Amino acid sequence: MSVGEWTVHARLDVSYRVAEAPGLLAPGDRALARAARLEPGARRLVVVDQRVLELHGARLRAYFAARQAVPHLLALPGGERTKTVATLEQVVREADQVGLARRDPIVAVGGGVLTDLVGLAASLYRRGTPFVRVPTTLVGMVDAAVGAKTAVNAQGQKNRLGSYHPAADTLLDRSFLSTLSLRHIRNGMAEIVKMAVIDDAVLFDLLDADAEELVTGRLAGPAGREVMRRAITAMLAHLEPNLWEQDLRRAVDFGHTFGPAVEMAAQPGMLHGEAVALDMALCCAIAVDQGLLAEVDARRVLRLLHRTGLPVRHALGEPDFLWEALTESTRHRDGRQHVPLPAGIGKCVFADALTAADLRRAVRTLDRLVEAEGITR
Amino acid sequence: MSVGEWTVHARLDVSYRVAEAPGLLAPGDRALARAARLEPGARRLVVVDQRVLELHGARLRAYFAARQAVPHLLALPGGERTKTVATLEQVVREADQVGLARRDPIVAVGGGVLTDLVGLAASLYRRGTPFVRVPTTLVGMVDAAVGAKTAVNAQGQKNRLGSYHPAADTLLDRSFLSTLSLRHIRNGMAEIVKMAVIDDAVLFDLLDADAEELVTGRLAGPAGREVMRRAITAMLAHLEPNLWEQDLRRAVDFGHTFGPAVEMAAQPGMLHGEAVALDMALCCAIAVDQGLLAEVDARRVLRLLHRTGLPVRHALGEPDFLWEALTESTRHRDGRQHVPLPAGIGKCVFADALTAADLRRAVRTLDRLVEAEGITR
Repeated sequence: MSVGEWTVHARLDVSYRVAEAPGLLAPGDRALARAARLEPGARRLVVVDQRVLELHGARLRAYFAARQAVPHLLALPGGERTKTVATLEQVVREADQVGLARRDPIVAVGGGVLTDLVGLAASLYRRGTPFVRVPTTLVGMVDAAVGAKTAVNAQGQKNRLGSYHPAADTLLDRSFLSTLSLRHIRNGMAEIVKMAVIDDAVLFDLLDADAEELVTGRLAGPAGREVMRRAITAMLAHLEPNLWEQDLRRAVDFGHTFGPAVEMAAQPGMLHGEAVALDMALCCAIAVDQGLLAEVDARRVLRLLHRTGLPVRHALGEPDFLWEALTESTRHRDGRQHVPLPAGIGKCVFADALTAADLRRAVRTLDRLVEAEGITR
Repeated sequence: MSVGEWTVHARLDVSYRVAEAPGLLAPGDRALARAARLEPGARRLVVVDQRVLELHGARLRAYFAARQAVPHLLALPGGERTKTVATLEQVVREADQVGLARRDPIVAVGGGVLTDLVGLAASLYRRGTPFVRVPTTLVGMVDAAVGAKTAVNAQGQKNRLGSYHPAADTLLDRSFLSTLSLRHIRNGMAEIVKMAVIDDAVLFDLLDADAEELVTGRLAGPAGREVMRRAITAMLAHLEPNLWEQDLRRAVDFGHTFGPAVEMAAQPGMLHGEAVALDMALCCAIAVDQGLLAEVDARRVLRLLHRTGLPVRHALGEPDFLWEALTESTRHRDGRQHVPLPAGIGKCVFADALTAADLRRAVRTLDRLVEAEGITR
């Protein structure tokens, strides 16, 4: 009582589970029932992608009915335009109508946009409600739905508002990919290529051996399972020690320096992974210019992206725009550039002193490499 | 790689400081400059209560100017009607205009509504931006601005959306109270009475000895300082081990079971502490009925509230409405009532099986006690 000063120390332990759950909606499967605590009479808010509801709604309803649980379904359209504060308020309104208790889990079934959005709503509702993620897209399964980050876009900026609020359970059923468009498969492949380039040369070789088949086969076979497992393992190894991003030098931000600005400027019409691919291609060119990456390796990455069906060059990728994008990312990294660059395939370093001239040069280098690879689109 | 299941474990250490900072805006004082990192050229978003800006704006600007720092001032009106998602978006818009970097602190100067709102905006902006709290009201100094909770109201529900995001620094300058209305002094006194009743019989005696003088003197003297310190010490001792409310049995929720519904239903026109006082009075009656609190002690509490100038009875305090309020609080406590009740002065227990009949009886008991005390308003 003698000095008017107090210090509060507290510690939060967080753990969460990501698990393969094949046959998730089969009537007898128990993974979702356990994660969402589907006891008889349980009312659950289930936020589900509109298209997923059309394709799988009957099975979803039957699954709940078999457990005498009541799904309160809220269908949302896919795409970045859904990822707004207004949609978040819609989720909250529904949660109130269902009369959710403090620890009643919300279930999110859909792509990364949907799981990010529902995650933020759950994070804010009563200052934190649990939720369960069922990603139905590849980008969800390997990236958005396995981390802790939630978000909505605001002020024309990607993920301007968000939180760290992992789902206690994320359940992965690759069979959802069988009804996904190939463009969305490619979208998710971009994040897998990312993990390969910065962290896992073996994964890169697996992709390189099989790129076209992985895409057209929608990762259904054993090779697809192996690729997905390696990507998730690498991703979680990077996230676990830095879950709240106290360290702003993040290798998993490879592809996410210039990407967010490109993605938002190209809305509607560009998918997240497409912007990530464009960014990775540019960063490979920067890495070549900086003497970090052999030209032959940069060309391997460009070739893999192209074979996967991802873009490596875009009209927005001009030096002035890229400099603006870097400026905004630098603010996001507290005034440091921290640009992840590949230092050979499977390794990552950070650049902190890129200039506008470096970007002009990198664009020329990228054009040259793209031309050398004979990539025309 | 042999099983498709991953578990992520992570730990977040949080610490924050609450400190008395008399003479906060004196040109030579360094507390705020240090907390807000006011280096030459630093641009800071300062969200400030409209009325506080009128009274203290010139000193605030001079303080920044003396450090060659640039305050980007956003003035907001006081009162619950400001505590909305729309106002939160306004704060975010300003943060973008200032061009804040990831770790640039936002400064919040105002009452509990404002610090709760800015705290939520800071918590969400880029998934977490630091902020500094300068509470200018008594309820801010002893309650809202010393904890970790942030919030806005939504769907007609008090604090429906929020997070746990304490300011790294909260700076307390009691001189702000000299320009505060007596009604707002009383508003803050309700939270001080709360801590006394559930935790600190010595604090209760201090209040009891001096209630009227503390209010009219706006806690300016040594007795006021002592009262404030004891209230904060007790509050933080309750918050520290349960900062994220993993335990939903919270003694500091005394006054906050029926209060939130009463407060929202009486908007505009009722202050938070007035709703807390009404709830505490009712809960004392419940505690008498349950044999937890001697009638003489319940009457001491009612008398203290009344002498402080707080209401103990209100038209909304009727059994049906109170039952609805309890139902909503029970949802908020995950299906358990967990109603904090005084078990003698300075001690707290929890009720979990109150019935509608118990509430009808408590209202009658309260009316009887109020009449016995000769309280007419």
